[in-house]
Amino acid sequence: MTRILGHNYIGGQRSALGEVRLQSLDAATGEALPGAFSQATAAEVDAAANAAASAFPVLRGLPAGRRAEFLDAIADELDALGDDFIATVCRETALPAGRILGERGRTSGQMRLFAKVLRRGDFHGARIDRALPDRQPLPRPDVRQCRIGVGPVAVFGASNFPLAFSTAGGDTASALAAGCPVVVKAHSGHMATAEWVADAIIRAADRTGMPAGVFNMIYGGGVGEWLVKHPAIQAVGFTGSLKGGNALSRLAAERPQPIPVFAEMSSINPVILLPGALQARSETIARELSASVTLGCGQFCTNPGLVLGLRSSAFSAFVEQFKAQMAGQPAQTMLNRGTLASYRKGLQQLHQHPGIRHLAGGEEVGNQARPQLFQADVSLLLSGDELLQEEVFGPATLVIEVEDQQQLAAAIRALRGQLTATLLGEPGELGECGWLSELLQEKVGRVLINGYPTGVEVCDAMVHGGPYPATSDSRGTSVGTLAIDRYMRPVCFQNYPDALLPPPLQSSNPLNLLRLVDGELTRACA
Amino acid sequence: MTRILGHNYIGGQRSALGEVRLQSLDAATGEALPGAFSQATAAEVDAAANAAASAFPVLRGLPAGRRAEFLDAIADELDALGDDFIATVCRETALPAGRILGERGRTSGQMRLFAKVLRRGDFHGARIDRALPDRQPLPRPDVRQCRIGVGPVAVFGASNFPLAFSTAGGDTASALAAGCPVVVKAHSGHMATAEWVADAIIRAADRTGMPAGVFNMIYGGGVGEWLVKHPAIQAVGFTGSLKGGNALSRLAAERPQPIPVFAEMSSINPVILLPGALQARSETIARELSASVTLGCGQFCTNPGLVLGLRSSAFSAFVEQFKAQMAGQPAQTMLNRGTLASYRKGLQQLHQHPGIRHLAGGEEVGNQARPQLFQADVSLLLSGDELLQEEVFGPATLVIEVEDQQQLAAAIRALRGQLTATLLGEPGELGECGWLSELLQEKVGRVLINGYPTGVEVCDAMVHGGPYPATSDSRGTSVGTLAIDRYMRPVCFQNYPDALLPPPLQSSNPLNLLRLVDGELTRACA
Repeated sequence: MTRILGHNYIGGQRSALGEVRLQSLDAATGEALPGAFSQATAAEVDAAANAAASAFPVLRGLPAGRRAEFLDAIADELDALGDDFIATVCRETALPAGRILGERGRTSGQMRLFAKVLRRGDFHGARIDRALPDRQPLPRPDVRQCRIGVGPVAVFGASNFPLAFSTAGGDTASALAAGCPVVVKAHSGHMATAEWVADAIIRAADRTGMPAGVFNMIYGGGVGEWLVKHPAIQAVGFTGSLKGGNALSRLAAERPQPIPVFAEMSSINPVILLPGALQARSETIARELSASVTLGCGQFCTNPGLVLGLRSSAFSAFVEQFKAQMAGQPAQTMLNRGTLASYRKGLQQLHQHPGIRHLAGGEEVGNQARPQLFQADVSLLLSGDELLQEEVFGPATLVIEVEDQQQLAAAIRALRGQLTATLLGEPGELGECGWLSELLQEKVGRVLINGYPTGVEVCDAMVHGGPYPATSDSRGTSVGTLAIDRYMRPVCFQNYPDALLPPPLQSSNPLNLLRLVDGELTRACA
Repeated sequence: MTRILGHNYIGGQRSALGEVRLQSLDAATGEALPGAFSQATAAEVDAAANAAASAFPVLRGLPAGRRAEFLDAIADELDALGDDFIATVCRETALPAGRILGERGRTSGQMRLFAKVLRRGDFHGARIDRALPDRQPLPRPDVRQCRIGVGPVAVFGASNFPLAFSTAGGDTASALAAGCPVVVKAHSGHMATAEWVADAIIRAADRTGMPAGVFNMIYGGGVGEWLVKHPAIQAVGFTGSLKGGNALSRLAAERPQPIPVFAEMSSINPVILLPGALQARSETIARELSASVTLGCGQFCTNPGLVLGLRSSAFSAFVEQFKAQMAGQPAQTMLNRGTLASYRKGLQQLHQHPGIRHLAGGEEVGNQARPQLFQADVSLLLSGDELLQEEVFGPATLVIEVEDQQQLAAAIRALRGQLTATLLGEPGELGECGWLSELLQEKVGRVLINGYPTGVEVCDAMVHGGPYPATSDSRGTSVGTLAIDRYMRPVCFQNYPDALLPPPLQSSNPLNLLRLVDGELTRACA
């Protein structure tokens, strides 16, 4: 572990001008790990943002294929990291090696998927309306549109995905793909991991001839505020708590030049159990659902925190089976002491609430978190009780029984915005659930049928987003290739000589893009 | 004019519960026009927003072709309005009948263009990643994505385009196209016009079987704040002043559930004169540019408010010609007394600034605005003088001479975000202007070569947007079909039975859309 230098990454150089040194902790023992990290000074934050700004015109001017090479190279560098790296991540996060290996594959796969997007070219959004010189009463000029990056992006990673939602995670991948240099605020929960990953990105940048400043990273507490306020920063990507995301959104809105923030924050991911499914496979659902709730110690944005079922003997039987399953799940070590403390605080509030009953789960003692199951009366949801809406980050969930379909609809309407909602049902009853599907779409970014929300596929069609407070802007996603849209803006070229046009818009269509020409999608010249 | 009822439009009904009555004024004389308008009460604003919310599930559930019929019907109703309507608009705005006829054509054309977008179907954003049951280490579920409307949209129109940027303007057209009901805050400068247009929309809604509440409109000062704060409202479209747009953005960000605002606000639209162009056609440019500055009494968002040229005898000669042209332009009546007062306040600040010289323009007297030309030293721009960045809404512009290309680049970098930038040059010199084109793209939403920014084509490729303060979010546009993106969000369907999927995502591709299936754009089944 002596390879950790702990200096900030600024414009291709390392920098440690400040006096504050930070240490990373072993997630299981709380012991300080070897190595120290230099908290960035205000001048270093400024330098990192300026380095990104200097790199921006170069990066966005590169052919998309060159940026694709860079992303592929990052993927290769990540995949080539050895056992020392995996051991470091495991020590910092208490996540098992198998999970970290899987998450690395997801992270490098994500980079390669964005490389594919860059080569496919539809992200350019090329549109052409050709001149109509004879149009009456006025001629139409030649008007062409494509998209460019918004500028340097500040990235705030999450504790729970130290690879896939952190230094080289989806925000970084989509920003770089869009042609936006990034400044990552290294997560304090896995600074050594961040350093390994940053080194991999820098090697890839060097290898593929990227401009210095294409990737920057700063360490420290409180430095994120300076970053978001910096005039060179043009957008923010964040995954974390509602409080943290709201604070960054507010900072960004109060800048002299406000900038967009995509913050993925808080979701309780309701799961709705239909009667037929419970009749057909109650025991299986109890087992699978408890596995989903406790997977990764419940430390997922898409963890099912609310289970809704219609009053029936089948549902009562399910609750008993679910209790047994939840009670049988082992305790697990959480990402860090702060996360454990938050989990216990959340549980305490549930325990103390007079309208909520504890159904299963052993007493919380020691350094590990235990799975917990609660039940609440639907009236709490319908009356807008805040506690029911709040994500308890960890392996806990809450069951609510509703009277009938009408009350189910009311309960869903009472929910805030969510990342996901899940319907478990049999074919016959699902056929009558059009109304439920429509209702859920208005609340969430992703609706699943007969699956579990944990496990977010990285693909073109994924949406990891949703109405507030799931995210700060329901029009975006932080997983899947649509994530690139958050960091691009359209630019229009009117009456431009062909040679001055960017390649996506040149008449000969040199990139062989499918373009919207005079209202028709075509690969023809224009 | 006795046909004016002056009641608010709420859920297909008219309502006048309040006691405050407002009058519209003749723009030329300041006299009150016949008819009175009932300022909406808090309860009426609430009812209007709730009516929109009730209409939302119905409207977004209609096939896109049905919404297209509605937009086409609005277009037909607008085109069928008679001379009384045109006379009303002219009296309220002092704009000439020819301009209003042209603007009506633009407004109905815009509705028909969005109808075309709905029939074309690419706005659905259909993406499909099919299941890979045999994938290792984990199978991939079937994941499908399309876009739905965000929910009810609050629309705040502009004074300067009483048709194209108002009641049935681009914000309303794009919101309705997206499946979002609207609540329009009628502009106080043209309330009678707003009523004529609202009636046309209601007739179209009735004729095409739209849900009550698809279109709502409220009158009054201060009622916009209630509207933006209303929990049912999910997005805001605004065209107007920087102050007004900032205030709405702040309100929207401070809601318990923050919502996106697209505000088109302030731009000085720099025009850059290259030496070759001045040598070849200085006199023509002086004439055309003064016509662009004074068109519509300078009351355009894209009005050229800053003219930059390189120091040379050709540029000095141009400035003399431009002075003569500007001095020869007639006075015109502005949209209303408030606009005239703002214009004169802006001019006064320019006159009083020690670093700014007045070059041409008669004394401001009476009720009409006179074209005015000023010159400033480039140092003011480079040192960040705020006055140079501020839009003076009206027929005024300012010339700045720069030393050389390097100083030109610095001057452009010193500018805030803009809707447009324009380059006037000859073919040879334009060929060497790649750097300038790149620089301008980072500042603006639209770059024009050898044209004038006034006159914004409504088409697929248009961008009427740009970095702050041109707009509140550079990723959007308020003109052109891409405007629909502001009011849509993606929703993902995982492991859905085909029958429950929305038609854009069903396997048989019943809408014959071009869809992104497993990473390839195709119309094939999936």
